[in-house]
Amino acid sequence: MDRGRLEAFSDGVFAVAITLLALNLAVAGPGHGTLAHQLGQHWPGYVAYLISFFTIGIIWVNHHALVSNVLTVTRLLLFLNLVLLLFIVLIPVATETVADYLARGGFDAKLAVAVYGIVLTGMSAGFASMMEWSLRKGRTLIPVPREKRWAARLRFMSGALVYLLVIGLAFISASAALGLSCLIAVYYVFERTPTVGRDAGSQGAGSEDADA
Amino acid sequence: MDRGRLEAFSDGVFAVAITLLALNLAVAGPGHGTLAHQLGQHWPGYVAYLISFFTIGIIWVNHHALVSNVLTVTRLLLFLNLVLLLFIVLIPVATETVADYLARGGFDAKLAVAVYGIVLTGMSAGFASMMEWSLRKGRTLIPVPREKRWAARLRFMSGALVYLLVIGLAFISASAALGLSCLIAVYYVFERTPTVGRDAGSQGAGSEDADA
Amino acid sequence: MDRGRLEAFSDGVFAVAITLLALNLAVAGPGHGTLAHQLGQHWPGYVAYLISFFTIGIIWVNHHALVSNVLTVTRLLLFLNLVLLLFIVLIPVATETVADYLARGGFDAKLAVAVYGIVLTGMSAGFASMMEWSLRKGRTLIPVPREKRWAARLRFMSGALVYLLVIGLAFISASAALGLSCLIAVYYVFERTPTVGRDAGSQGAGSEDADA
Amino acid sequence: MDRGRLEAFSDGVFAVAITLLALNLAVAGPGHGTLAHQLGQHWPGYVAYLISFFTIGIIWVNHHALVSNVLTVTRLLLFLNLVLLLFIVLIPVATETVADYLARGGFDAKLAVAVYGIVLTGMSAGFASMMEWSLRKGRTLIPVPREKRWAARLRFMSGALVYLLVIGLAFISASAALGLSCLIAVYYVFERTPTVGRDAGSQGAGSEDADA
Repeated sequence: MDRGRLEAFSDGVFAVAITLLALNLAVAGPGHGTLAHQLGQHWPGYVAYLISFFTIGIIWVNHHALVSNVLTVTRLLLFLNLVLLLFIVLIPVATETVADYLARGGFDAKLAVAVYGIVLTGMSAGFASMMEWSLRKGRTLIPVPREKRWAARLRFMSGALVYLLVIGLAFISASAALGLSCLIAVYYVFERTPTVGRDAGSQGAGSEDADA
Repeated sequence: MDRGRLEAFSDGVFAVAITLLALNLAVAGPGHGTLAHQLGQHWPGYVAYLISFFTIGIIWVNHHALVSNVLTVTRLLLFLNLVLLLFIVLIPVATETVADYLARGGFDAKLAVAVYGIVLTGMSAGFASMMEWSLRKGRTLIPVPREKRWAARLRFMSGALVYLLVIGLAFISASAALGLSCLIAVYYVFERTPTVGRDAGSQGAGSEDADA
Repeated sequence: MDRGRLEAFSDGVFAVAITLLALNLAVAGPGHGTLAHQLGQHWPGYVAYLISFFTIGIIWVNHHALVSNVLTVTRLLLFLNLVLLLFIVLIPVATETVADYLARGGFDAKLAVAVYGIVLTGMSAGFASMMEWSLRKGRTLIPVPREKRWAARLRFMSGALVYLLVIGLAFISASAALGLSCLIAVYYVFERTPTVGRDAGSQGAGSEDADA
Repeated sequence: MDRGRLEAFSDGVFAVAITLLALNLAVAGPGHGTLAHQLGQHWPGYVAYLISFFTIGIIWVNHHALVSNVLTVTRLLLFLNLVLLLFIVLIPVATETVADYLARGGFDAKLAVAVYGIVLTGMSAGFASMMEWSLRKGRTLIPVPREKRWAARLRFMSGALVYLLVIGLAFISASAALGLSCLIAVYYVFERTPTVGRDAGSQGAGSEDADA
C-alpha cells in the first residue's frame, strides 16, 4: 500500500476537525444580550480555539513529515494512525467543553481542562506510537541512526508526558493547565523535529527556516 | 477512469463521517448539572463512539485494499460505492440514536440498536457487493483464484449476516447486540483479508504484521 | 493549471455536502415521544435523503467524467465550477426544508419543494455551463464531434429544464414534484453520458456496464 | 516536502468551510411562522452567503495559483498557511453573525459586520504573508521579476488594507461595509493575479480567458 490514501484520509480528518473547531465560536444570536456582550463573554472560546487550532496544525505538520518518510504502509501503521485520529476528532468537542466551563471556575472548569488534557495526551500517545513504529529497522526511507533513537523517543514521549502533567495540573489550576498546553503548542512550532528523517536529512538542519 | 477520484471522494466521505461521530459526545453545557455528572451519563455515547469509529476505520482500510486492486473503475462500481457510502454517512446519526437511548432501556433502547444494526448491515452489504463485483474475471490486478472465491464471498457475506443477527438480537437485548457489533469490529481488526489480492499476493501472508 | 486541485477541492465539497445530508435524519431524542413514533414521522426525511444523496452522487460521477476530459483548466472553468458548488452546498439545507415541511402539506410543503427545485435547477444549470464550456474547440482531450454537440447540449440542458418543471409542479403537487426529481436522478443513473468524451470514446459505448 | 499534502489539507479546509456556510441558511422549521415568511426574513443570510462563498472561492483559486508555483514547501510556509486557514475557518461563523444581526440594525449590526471585516482582514493578511514569502529569491518556479515585486505586494496588501476599511466603515454603515466586501470579491473575480508566476508566465496574460 502506498502512502497516498493514508495521507488523503488523514488530511480529510485533520481538515474537518480543524474547521469544526471554529463552530464553537458562534454566538447564541439575537435575544441573548447585545452582540458586544456575547463576544466579550466568549473569550475562553477564543483562547481554546487558538490553542486547539495550532495543536492540530502542528500535529498535522509532524504527521506529514513522519508519513512522507515511511517506506511501506502496513496494516499495523493504519491502525496506529486510526488511534491518533480517534483523539484528533475529539479535540473540537473537548475544546468546546473548555470554552463552556473555563470562565465558570470551580471544579467544572478544572474537570473541563482535565478532559481536554486527556484528549491531548491520547493524541500525543497515538503519535508517539507511530513514531516508535517508524524507528524500527527497514521502515523509513531515511532511518534514524541507532544512537539518535532514544533522543527521538524522548522528544515525542516527553510531549505525551507533559500532556499528562496538564491533566494533573488542571485539578490545581485550570488556567495554568491550559497555559501549559499552549506552551507545548508554541514549543512544537519552533522546535524542529530532526528525528523525522527526510526533512532533516536531505536539507541540513535548519536550512528551511534559514531564509525566513 | 482511474481510481484516484473514486478514492478521493470516498476518503472525503469516510473522513467527514468519522469526524462527525465525535460531535455526539458534546455535553449540553452549563445549566444541565455538574460537568462530572454530564460526562458520567454520557457513557453509552463513549461506547457507541468507539465501536462506530473502528467500524468506519476498518471499512476504510478494507475499502482501500479492495479499490487499490481494481483494474478499471466502471460506472457500475461507482454506484455500488455510492450505496456503500449511503450507509457510511448514516453511521453518525445511528450512533447518536444509540447514545441517546441505550441507557434508557426498554423498547426504545432495543429499537435504537436495531436501527444501528440496519445501517451496519446495509454498509456491510454494500461492501460485499463491491467485493462480489471485484471477483469477476478481468476486474482486478491480482485476481482471486477461482477456488478461493467462495471463501472470499463467505468472509464478506458472513459480515453482513452477523450484522443481520445484530438487528434480531437487539430486540432481545440491546447491550448484547451492541456487544456483538463491537466483536465484529474487533474481528476485522485482527483478521487479515487475504481475498483482497494485492496485499496478500505481493507481500506474503502476514508479512506486514510480522515486524509489529 | 492541472486538474488535480480542481478535483480535490470539488471532491471535498461533494463529500462534505453528501455527508451533511444524513444529519437531517437525527431524531429529536428522548422526551419527544417514543423512538418508533419519531422514526415513523421522519419518512419525508428518508425520501428526501435518498433523492438528494443519489442526485449529488450522480452529479459527482458526471463531474468526474467531464473534468477528466478537460485539457487545460482555465480561470473561467474554475468560476463555473464554483457556481456549480454554490448550489451543491445548498442541497443539504434544501433537503432539510423538504423533510421538515413535506408531511405538513399546504402551501409550506409546496414552497419547500419549490425551493428544493430551485436549488437543483441552479445545480443543473451550473453543470450545463461547464458542459457548454467543454464543447468549445481545443478544450477537451477527446472533443465531442460537431454533429453531436447539439445532442450533448440537449441532454444537459434538458436536465435543467425538467428541474424548472419541478419548481412549477411543486405549486400544484409537492409530492408529484418530488417524485419528478426522483425520476431525474433515476434517469441519470441508467442513462450513460456519451457526450462526455473519454469514457465513451476510449472504451466503446456501454462496454463498462456490459459485464455487470 | 512536496506541495501535495499542503494542497490536500488546505483544499479540505476550504471545502469544509465553504460547505458549512450554507448551513446558516437553514430555516428554523415548523412552528416559527410560515415558510415564506421565514425565507423572506433570511435575506441577509443569502447576501452574506453569496459574498462569503465567492470570497472563499476566490482565495482558493489564488491559493492554488500561488502554491502551484512554490519550489520547496518549508516549515515556515506551512505555518503561514495555517495562519491563513485560521481565518478561513472563522468565515462561516462570522457570516452567520452577519446574517443574524444585519437586519436588526443598530450597533449590533455594525459590530457584526466589523467582526466579519476583522476575519476577512486576517485572511487577507495571511494570504499576503504567503505572497511575500513567495517573492523571496529561489522560492518559486517562475520568480516574479524584481521590478514587479512592489506591484505584486501592493496588489495583495491593498486587499488587506481595503478589508481594514471594511472594519472602519462598518461602524458608520453596516450595509455599506458589507457592500464593500462584496466589491472586493467581485474585483478579485475579474482581476487576474499576474504576480503569480506560473499562470501568467506560461500562458501569456489573459490568454486563459480569451476564449471565454
